[in-house]
Amino acid sequence: MITVGEYLGTRLLQLDVEHLFGLPGDFVLNLIEQLIAASHDGKQLAWLGGTNELNASYEADGYARSFKKISALVTTYGVGELSAINGIAGAYAENVPVLHIVGIPATNQLETDNFYHHMLGDGHFDHFAKAAQEVTDGGLFIDLREAATPENIPDLIDDLLLKILANSRPGYIGVPVDIATTMVSTANLRTELVVPESLDDVENYTNDLRATLSKAFEAGAENFTILAGMLSYRQNVIDDLRRIARINGAQIASQPNAKGIIPRDDVGSLGIYMGEFTDSPKTFEAVENARPLILVGTILSDLLLGQFSHKFDYPNSIELNIGDARIEDRTYSLTMSQSVPILVDVLNELSDKFNLQPVHGLDNVEPAKLEYTGKLTHDHIWDSAQKLIYAAREDVIVTADAGTSFYGALPLELRENDLFLGQIVWASIGYSIPATAGVVHALPNIRPIIFVGDGAAELTIQDLSNLYKYGNKPIVFLLNNDGYTVERLIRDPKAKYHEITSFNWKKLAEGFAGDTPIYTKTLTTAREMQKIVKKLVKLDKPAFIELMLDKTDAPQQMKNVFGFKN
Amino acid sequence: MITVGEYLGTRLLQLDVEHLFGLPGDFVLNLIEQLIAASHDGKQLAWLGGTNELNASYEADGYARSFKKISALVTTYGVGELSAINGIAGAYAENVPVLHIVGIPATNQLETDNFYHHMLGDGHFDHFAKAAQEVTDGGLFIDLREAATPENIPDLIDDLLLKILANSRPGYIGVPVDIATTMVSTANLRTELVVPESLDDVENYTNDLRATLSKAFEAGAENFTILAGMLSYRQNVIDDLRRIARINGAQIASQPNAKGIIPRDDVGSLGIYMGEFTDSPKTFEAVENARPLILVGTILSDLLLGQFSHKFDYPNSIELNIGDARIEDRTYSLTMSQSVPILVDVLNELSDKFNLQPVHGLDNVEPAKLEYTGKLTHDHIWDSAQKLIYAAREDVIVTADAGTSFYGALPLELRENDLFLGQIVWASIGYSIPATAGVVHALPNIRPIIFVGDGAAELTIQDLSNLYKYGNKPIVFLLNNDGYTVERLIRDPKAKYHEITSFNWKKLAEGFAGDTPIYTKTLTTAREMQKIVKKLVKLDKPAFIELMLDKTDAPQQMKNVFGFKN
Repeated sequence: MITVGEYLGTRLLQLDVEHLFGLPGDFVLNLIEQLIAASHDGKQLAWLGGTNELNASYEADGYARSFKKISALVTTYGVGELSAINGIAGAYAENVPVLHIVGIPATNQLETDNFYHHMLGDGHFDHFAKAAQEVTDGGLFIDLREAATPENIPDLIDDLLLKILANSRPGYIGVPVDIATTMVSTANLRTELVVPESLDDVENYTNDLRATLSKAFEAGAENFTILAGMLSYRQNVIDDLRRIARINGAQIASQPNAKGIIPRDDVGSLGIYMGEFTDSPKTFEAVENARPLILVGTILSDLLLGQFSHKFDYPNSIELNIGDARIEDRTYSLTMSQSVPILVDVLNELSDKFNLQPVHGLDNVEPAKLEYTGKLTHDHIWDSAQKLIYAAREDVIVTADAGTSFYGALPLELRENDLFLGQIVWASIGYSIPATAGVVHALPNIRPIIFVGDGAAELTIQDLSNLYKYGNKPIVFLLNNDGYTVERLIRDPKAKYHEITSFNWKKLAEGFAGDTPIYTKTLTTAREMQKIVKKLVKLDKPAFIELMLDKTDAPQQMKNVFGFKN
Repeated sequence: MITVGEYLGTRLLQLDVEHLFGLPGDFVLNLIEQLIAASHDGKQLAWLGGTNELNASYEADGYARSFKKISALVTTYGVGELSAINGIAGAYAENVPVLHIVGIPATNQLETDNFYHHMLGDGHFDHFAKAAQEVTDGGLFIDLREAATPENIPDLIDDLLLKILANSRPGYIGVPVDIATTMVSTANLRTELVVPESLDDVENYTNDLRATLSKAFEAGAENFTILAGMLSYRQNVIDDLRRIARINGAQIASQPNAKGIIPRDDVGSLGIYMGEFTDSPKTFEAVENARPLILVGTILSDLLLGQFSHKFDYPNSIELNIGDARIEDRTYSLTMSQSVPILVDVLNELSDKFNLQPVHGLDNVEPAKLEYTGKLTHDHIWDSAQKLIYAAREDVIVTADAGTSFYGALPLELRENDLFLGQIVWASIGYSIPATAGVVHALPNIRPIIFVGDGAAELTIQDLSNLYKYGNKPIVFLLNNDGYTVERLIRDPKAKYHEITSFNWKKLAEGFAGDTPIYTKTLTTAREMQKIVKKLVKLDKPAFIELMLDKTDAPQQMKNVFGFKN
């Protein structure tokens, strides 16, 4: 027998979770104690205190995205959990498997109608769990006075974890103070949690896939087109996609937030597709006219589809999702980790059979030589960013916050083991710094390069402390344009409500770094930007680089999307 | 005819709202435009950009508490509104009338099942409004495809505002992008919004009150006891309570968060009551044994009642709430602003009739002379804080965050026009700085003195920028004890999860102050604390004073409440 907290902690350890993100609070203290007391294979969970609950939720989100099966966020009742709910909603929208563990009042407190702190005082204690259920999938609120007993708590926990794993969506568990230390059986723990796979559907899917693709090639198709999305990372089918890219006949485009899945110089690589705002006409045509089009791990949201300007033949496409596969109008119950390897095999087989030829992807266009003179502009930033990525001595993760940073980062090329992080579907500004502060615990050797505007950074800036403390020489580029430039592009560029209170950003960076020595610099000219690249490549500590920009300077592609005229 | 946004803005102006708190976002931009375009009596709403939505919600809360009928928080769909939900829940728990105005997607977007940004992608767009309904009262989600038409929108808005005013609770209104500019009639605006009063209940209440109190005095009661709570501020019955304090036979105690309602040296003033943790035995006895006990604007929550250690005769008490009055088991539909003036009249009448005599309140005990030697401790802080309050040249508002700051501030005496601010019912740490940054717009001449621990401050620290920019020489005392000392008192003082990442707080204060010159200082000794008081009294700019403390140093009363032994 072990406590409920230890049981949950052990399950997390079995799923390769090594860290807990969150903040303490009196209703969750003994649950935290139990969670960090759990051990499995000689490992224990490390507690990583967040700077506030929203930031901690982004940290947990970034951690889960870093090739983890799941991550865990721990908060206290009411005040804590509600502050994290925006981050959980983002995890829902972008299919990130975060378990939100909430310490709630003891069962004997919940049985009274006493007005305890962190309650609304109306005699109902489940308001916050109900709010959580609006943003979680298969969310579970363990009401210990009803469904749960010491006998079935392990099953309830296992069931919740399996749902999170299968759907790659956030879940919620509320644990009353006394239940955290209730003793339960360890019997379940002997079997590790594995999402059951359907064998029936494998055969039907394989046959249908072969038949559908064969029909297309028989009808004269000389190639096939993959549109790869960010969700390909969730069950890590990246290597499979790269294998597909090397099959004759393959052409592969990526969604904007799936940058880096297919290296640009791979045969058949088409770069980024985003509807009518796709940079290359060749890429646009390839996706729009694809017969067949194969969608892998895509999210079909407005910003990713160029404001729904896409016209590809969705009903007749093949779509491989996290939890199911669709071929035209037929759906199969398979996970992406099942469906994609089969796709590789079938494409290999048919490529040979139909004697498909390599497809020439995008030409490697030498970028126009940029003059590094005058004031610093977006053009200089992204040209230099590309040079920094190519010159970096470590694998890097490029994080771009929603706004000018995201659009500016779009054309950047990544190397084989580099990663990209951006939350552009949910698009909550301020995500980038805390999410990256979560990534660095899962991928401690990666070097973060973050691009974030001042308007976004101020929302979550305290998490610079965790980024600098734990990250591998992280570089933060703070694009200072005195407010919300993305909104200036949308409406009335001169309006006061686009502005923010002015900060001394360098002092903030140093203040949050605390005892960690960092390098800070403010750049106002193109020439300074050019020079900083070499400096950063060699730098052996974290950096904070403030980039001074005009209020309406933005990447041209972004101005196009929002119809902004200078 | 005017737009829906202008209509709403005009209603707010009619209710003496002068400022809008919040952050922009693409779904709310044209609503903000319409709100700030509204004018009434030559006035317009000023936009105050928040540093993030949680902080903005605290600002709106602080503003509403500052003798305002209502305040307005403006956020965008999903990402914005969810980030504010903790602040709205706090406003619910503590009866603060905040209107949360949310810009949501256009009706033609809501009619599709397109996956727009800030949505969950499941085809349902009302998840966030449903979550909001868990923390609002009479919350209204205007679904323009169903209930609302241009004809009834003014009535729906008026109805919501009246509910907020009557109940002093937060409300929610979601305005689709296109509806913000829909034209509606101005006819309603000719009549200002006033909560209807019940005249029937006035007579019944008055007679019952007279009869019930007379019975007590006939039975030999020689005095009466008032327990005044924070909600007395909501309909501003403070002057009435001070009148009661001067009636013969009166003795008045305050709840811990209602400090300052009754000046300590008033006749019959009993200081603070908090169940068994009440400092003075005389106060404890007076409330516990009161026949009759009259509760005015109280909240009966755990922290305010000394962990429910109170044993006063609640069923036989008289209780005057915001929206109703109770005499023993009989309830009357009267607002506090109706019931309390009648109480004054009846008590005056009966005091004369029964010839009640003045009650001697608490003795003015000269505090023990404190030695200002050695390391800085909580004792020095609060002794000096009292001296600072007495010496201040302006009216001050003392804000204490939940935790050691709140307990330390409990014994502080305020002068007649000084105020106290603390959110100890909902008790969300980090509230103090942003809430005070809201207060300063409603009470621009008051000087803020804020006490906040480092563990609490880090959650919302970016709002120092708004505090310093708009406040009247605010003083922030940052109690640096390397984490969450309140939780160290509750469980395992040495546990790692009580610690936070170390910051350079002075640099942070300077960084957030930006262009505003401020005074910063770190104090480690008692002697330095003693000296700073004079300096601060004369200082003509904002101040940030970091107070270095031991990890488990805390006010003695707080150690008692949590049963902590050194």
